Amino acid sequence: MVDGIREKPHPEETAKRSSRRMHRPDPALPTRITAAQQDEIAAERGVSTPTRRVTVPALEEILYEPLPVLDRGFVRVIDYMGDDGAIVQAARVSYGRGTRRVSEDRGLINYLMRHRHTTPFEMCEIKYHVKLPIFVARQWIRHRTANVNEYSARYSILDNEFYIPAPEHLAAQATINRQGRGDVLEGAAARRVLDLLREDSERAYAGYAAMLNEDEAGAPLDPAWPGLARELARMNLSLNFYTQWYWKTDLHNLMHFLSLRADPHAQYEIRAYAEAMLGTMQRWVPLAHVAFLEYRMNAASISATGLQVIRRLLAGEQIDQAPREWRELMATLGRQDP
Amino acid sequence: MVDGIREKPHPEETAKRSSRRMHRPDPALPTRITAAQQDEIAAERGVSTPTRRVTVPALEEILYEPLPVLDRGFVRVIDYMGDDGAIVQAARVSYGRGTRRVSEDRGLINYLMRHRHTTPFEMCEIKYHVKLPIFVARQWIRHRTANVNEYSARYSILDNEFYIPAPEHLAAQATINRQGRGDVLEGAAARRVLDLLREDSERAYAGYAAMLNEDEAGAPLDPAWPGLARELARMNLSLNFYTQWYWKTDLHNLMHFLSLRADPHAQYEIRAYAEAMLGTMQRWVPLAHVAFLEYRMNAASISATGLQVIRRLLAGEQIDQAPREWRELMATLGRQDP
Amino acid sequence: MVDGIREKPHPEETAKRSSRRMHRPDPALPTRITAAQQDEIAAERGVSTPTRRVTVPALEEILYEPLPVLDRGFVRVIDYMGDDGAIVQAARVSYGRGTRRVSEDRGLINYLMRHRHTTPFEMCEIKYHVKLPIFVARQWIRHRTANVNEYSARYSILDNEFYIPAPEHLAAQATINRQGRGDVLEGAAARRVLDLLREDSERAYAGYAAMLNEDEAGAPLDPAWPGLARELARMNLSLNFYTQWYWKTDLHNLMHFLSLRADPHAQYEIRAYAEAMLGTMQRWVPLAHVAFLEYRMNAASISATGLQVIRRLLAGEQIDQAPREWRELMATLGRQDP
Amino acid sequence: MVDGIREKPHPEETAKRSSRRMHRPDPALPTRITAAQQDEIAAERGVSTPTRRVTVPALEEILYEPLPVLDRGFVRVIDYMGDDGAIVQAARVSYGRGTRRVSEDRGLINYLMRHRHTTPFEMCEIKYHVKLPIFVARQWIRHRTANVNEYSARYSILDNEFYIPAPEHLAAQATINRQGRGDVLEGAAARRVLDLLREDSERAYAGYAAMLNEDEAGAPLDPAWPGLARELARMNLSLNFYTQWYWKTDLHNLMHFLSLRADPHAQYEIRAYAEAMLGTMQRWVPLAHVAFLEYRMNAASISATGLQVIRRLLAGEQIDQAPREWRELMATLGRQDP
Repeated sequence: MVDGIREKPHPEETAKRSSRRMHRPDPALPTRITAAQQDEIAAERGVSTPTRRVTVPALEEILYEPLPVLDRGFVRVIDYMGDDGAIVQAARVSYGRGTRRVSEDRGLINYLMRHRHTTPFEMCEIKYHVKLPIFVARQWIRHRTANVNEYSARYSILDNEFYIPAPEHLAAQATINRQGRGDVLEGAAARRVLDLLREDSERAYAGYAAMLNEDEAGAPLDPAWPGLARELARMNLSLNFYTQWYWKTDLHNLMHFLSLRADPHAQYEIRAYAEAMLGTMQRWVPLAHVAFLEYRMNAASISATGLQVIRRLLAGEQIDQAPREWRELMATLGRQDP
Repeated sequence: MVDGIREKPHPEETAKRSSRRMHRPDPALPTRITAAQQDEIAAERGVSTPTRRVTVPALEEILYEPLPVLDRGFVRVIDYMGDDGAIVQAARVSYGRGTRRVSEDRGLINYLMRHRHTTPFEMCEIKYHVKLPIFVARQWIRHRTANVNEYSARYSILDNEFYIPAPEHLAAQATINRQGRGDVLEGAAARRVLDLLREDSERAYAGYAAMLNEDEAGAPLDPAWPGLARELARMNLSLNFYTQWYWKTDLHNLMHFLSLRADPHAQYEIRAYAEAMLGTMQRWVPLAHVAFLEYRMNAASISATGLQVIRRLLAGEQIDQAPREWRELMATLGRQDP
Repeated sequence: MVDGIREKPHPEETAKRSSRRMHRPDPALPTRITAAQQDEIAAERGVSTPTRRVTVPALEEILYEPLPVLDRGFVRVIDYMGDDGAIVQAARVSYGRGTRRVSEDRGLINYLMRHRHTTPFEMCEIKYHVKLPIFVARQWIRHRTANVNEYSARYSILDNEFYIPAPEHLAAQATINRQGRGDVLEGAAARRVLDLLREDSERAYAGYAAMLNEDEAGAPLDPAWPGLARELARMNLSLNFYTQWYWKTDLHNLMHFLSLRADPHAQYEIRAYAEAMLGTMQRWVPLAHVAFLEYRMNAASISATGLQVIRRLLAGEQIDQAPREWRELMATLGRQDP
Repeated sequence: MVDGIREKPHPEETAKRSSRRMHRPDPALPTRITAAQQDEIAAERGVSTPTRRVTVPALEEILYEPLPVLDRGFVRVIDYMGDDGAIVQAARVSYGRGTRRVSEDRGLINYLMRHRHTTPFEMCEIKYHVKLPIFVARQWIRHRTANVNEYSARYSILDNEFYIPAPEHLAAQATINRQGRGDVLEGAAARRVLDLLREDSERAYAGYAAMLNEDEAGAPLDPAWPGLARELARMNLSLNFYTQWYWKTDLHNLMHFLSLRADPHAQYEIRAYAEAMLGTMQRWVPLAHVAFLEYRMNAASISATGLQVIRRLLAGEQIDQAPREWRELMATLGRQDP
């Protein structure tokens, strides 16, 4: 595990680590990866070969490492192409590696980001291996400009691994916003929901396993019954079961993904993945990362009317009306509602 | 309902029709659409306005009508742009409506299909409203070159509607092909699976409803408990629950979808949708439909080695070797395995 | 011709109209379309058929009509799918046509535009026939999410039609901005450039015609020489020659195109097309058009630092520093440079 | 220069090499890259850093090297991601590097290619720097699923470099196929075309330079005249002038590009690029390359009717009819026309 990860120990980390040697994970002891998988990863990380391509040492440092997300998920950077210099090089269609001076690169990258010149950012590519609940995968897949290979439940059997939210993320339905969370559930209410989720998930997996009627070697568990086709049996699993995929995209589309999914309006569960990925972006293309925060993530789009309101305020005018949209603008500008 | 549909009555049709007046469908009596929805559709169908655009009477005939698929799903054509003539017109970049003589249009469309000139087919567009189980939606969404708006379970509450296969589609895992179905389950084995699927689905919905704790008017069912956020509660539903979306694509990408999903290797459940859509394509662009069957659906790609084998066979040579791939070729050519 | 077009007569309009009957246009008398093409268009416009689809009378009014752009180019709306209501309908995944009350539709469309919920806008589609100079086509084609069929100069012979800028658009290289125009050329300087462009274009076409060595019936002009393949001869034409294409896109991607190409930073020649298309958008989806102007075209993205500056100004602070970026912000806010 | 390139000396190679030291290339002495560019490339090639990513030594060998195409063009591999093993790894969504045994990888890659499982091939990415005539760029850009950054003639001044076909590629218009080449031009006819192309190109550049009125330092050549904006002056250049771009795509889309552009029906000039790129694919993913030749490039799609004809022929039937399409089939099968 890399340093950055050790610094933010997850509540379940201890349990996870001790359980890594087990082959069939006990769902009561959340496990992200098995010991065999951990060995494969270590073997990958141990290999080093020379290359003429640009390399990014800060990203190489965490290459292949699973960065923990939610109770059993992860994000791993599997491969990458390009660095900050590759953005500059593409913008100039140059023969060499782009400028050597960081200050010039920074200036150009800021310029490109500010003016939405997106194509140079498309010249960098990154590939992730992600383990995520199916309902998160269903939101994620809506981003169409990426390459995806998902673990096939038509072909293979899914593990008994499902997402159970940490208590601090169990929230009531928001009352103002139909699409959001309100207060965190507490005490008995939280326990009731967690029990229900866990019991129904376990029952769903039990039904799935019974219909498959197959042990790990493919032999029938109960020879008295035929096994149902995998492509049918999977429909009994609920949307909190974990799936996995390889997901590859270019930096421009990654930033589009992050701008929507690392945003406070995104559902917490996908935001947790986006935040882990934002950290990998910082390691990979630090100049683009700073520009992205400045001109996209932490910027605001002000409507035509909003700009007029600001102009009038700056001119010292009093504005009495307070439409809803304007209140949002005032919040953006750090102003109290009158 | 249009004629083509009445001709193939579905086992559950009778139950469905009688239950259309019910507001909350009883899952034991599968319902595709409510009476209110049926009224909205009838109202849509009743409106006719003049247009200068090309129209396709055979497709207009079924416009907005739900074509039944699976036990509760449907496909409805909501809108379309272009016809066979629009393909011809785009290929020629013409000022008028393309040729008037059907024989010339047919010849050009066949030529374009045969030589994979795909861009003229992109000039026709179609929009569907589809109701489908989530596990089918997960396969379907992998076709990235389409526009999609899905019913949001973050925002709204899903109905208690889940897919239960008809007995003739309950099949054992294939033994040769890891990704397919073998023999149909019969008698007690089938009943056991159907009971299990139904019970688990009902329990999943009960858990979902209990966590939401909300009646149709949005008031709490049990005021003693808070309602869980919809975006969290939905994770308790299993993959056979129905969702809905608007799906819009161009004819080229529709044919790509159909060539993969109306294929015998596709999972039955998505194939059922593809076949209903193939029927709509026949109404919409009959010349392109015939060319599609001839040069895509019922054509075969023969490898370099396969072509050599055919050449040797045609030259009267005996071929003793029988690699697996060659057996497939012989099947394609209607030859017995020696 | 529709009214809106007659109101803005183009300098060359008179010449153009009188020359429409000619078959081979004299390049000195710019012609947009021939009499035969005009007849085909009139025939198209004369046909009206009933449809159950949504129709937009304001757009039907100009359907197929060439809207003049530059000296010989045009944009024609050939087909469309959907209207403002289709955006609403898709956002709700509804069974009927969406709300009937304009005020509700407007509110939802504004909300979707403001929060960048882009998929409902993808449910509307439009198809144009465009005649444009090749150097404009080269910028335009960079928008990848569209369907295109271009007139093929491999297959057919291009007409002797090239773009010569109107004198008011002949500008010197900008000195501050490397990518822009400065002062308009005047008098002898302008005449010199116009003569040079016209002479070189005529010579390029003469060389093209000589190499093709083919009359309109395909017979050799000079039987002593063979004709060069069209796919080779075309390389002698310069980038101001006109080409044509069918271009089809959805409303979301159209707005993206317009936000970049109707912008003052875009090159004048492509902006002229974008402005004509913005007019067609207003006819087609008037509510989305208003929302687009408010939240996209006339809105501004303010960076994280820019937002802080505004907050400090609103708090009455004096800001002495004036970095370049901040000057742009002050211009956006209607403030004088200190 | 790598060996493969030295082995196939181009007619103009000698001239090119001796002229590399020149700064402003004389168009009579074709130059691909300047001495300064050559130095930048050599500097790039000299750098080697360790990486944990997969590397492909055979591709590293030619990394950054310009592979000559046409008289002044080139293709350079600038970066790549993945190898044959990455295809396997993605198909299996595995934790490690995929199988180690080449025979298993080969079998799976053949299977994926044969059954058009395209997504695993999307997991490999390659980036090229290409110098190419504008008319070739116009065909190339039609492949939309790639990332492109082109040298901007709005911002910079294009060099005086244009494509003149080698005499063996100067062909007459085909008489049977409207879209193709017939006999090669010879003697005076060829000289006449070459002279015309060269003179018109030189004149086009002279006009461009005169309108720009700018020396290399940006100072006016003739202070009596203003310089025309670059974005306008460029329209005087003809379609055989060279442009440059960075072009990045995934392996699946590269193969789609190659299957269309390395095909004998493609125009020679773009085919020359495709063939150079096919060579880079062989170095990069040798197993996928073999599968691609077997199942795509050298395979044939046989229509439904074609399959029936083959079945009847194999059954010993005589077939008297000989429609055009069937003649093509017989040619595919190596049979004489009866």
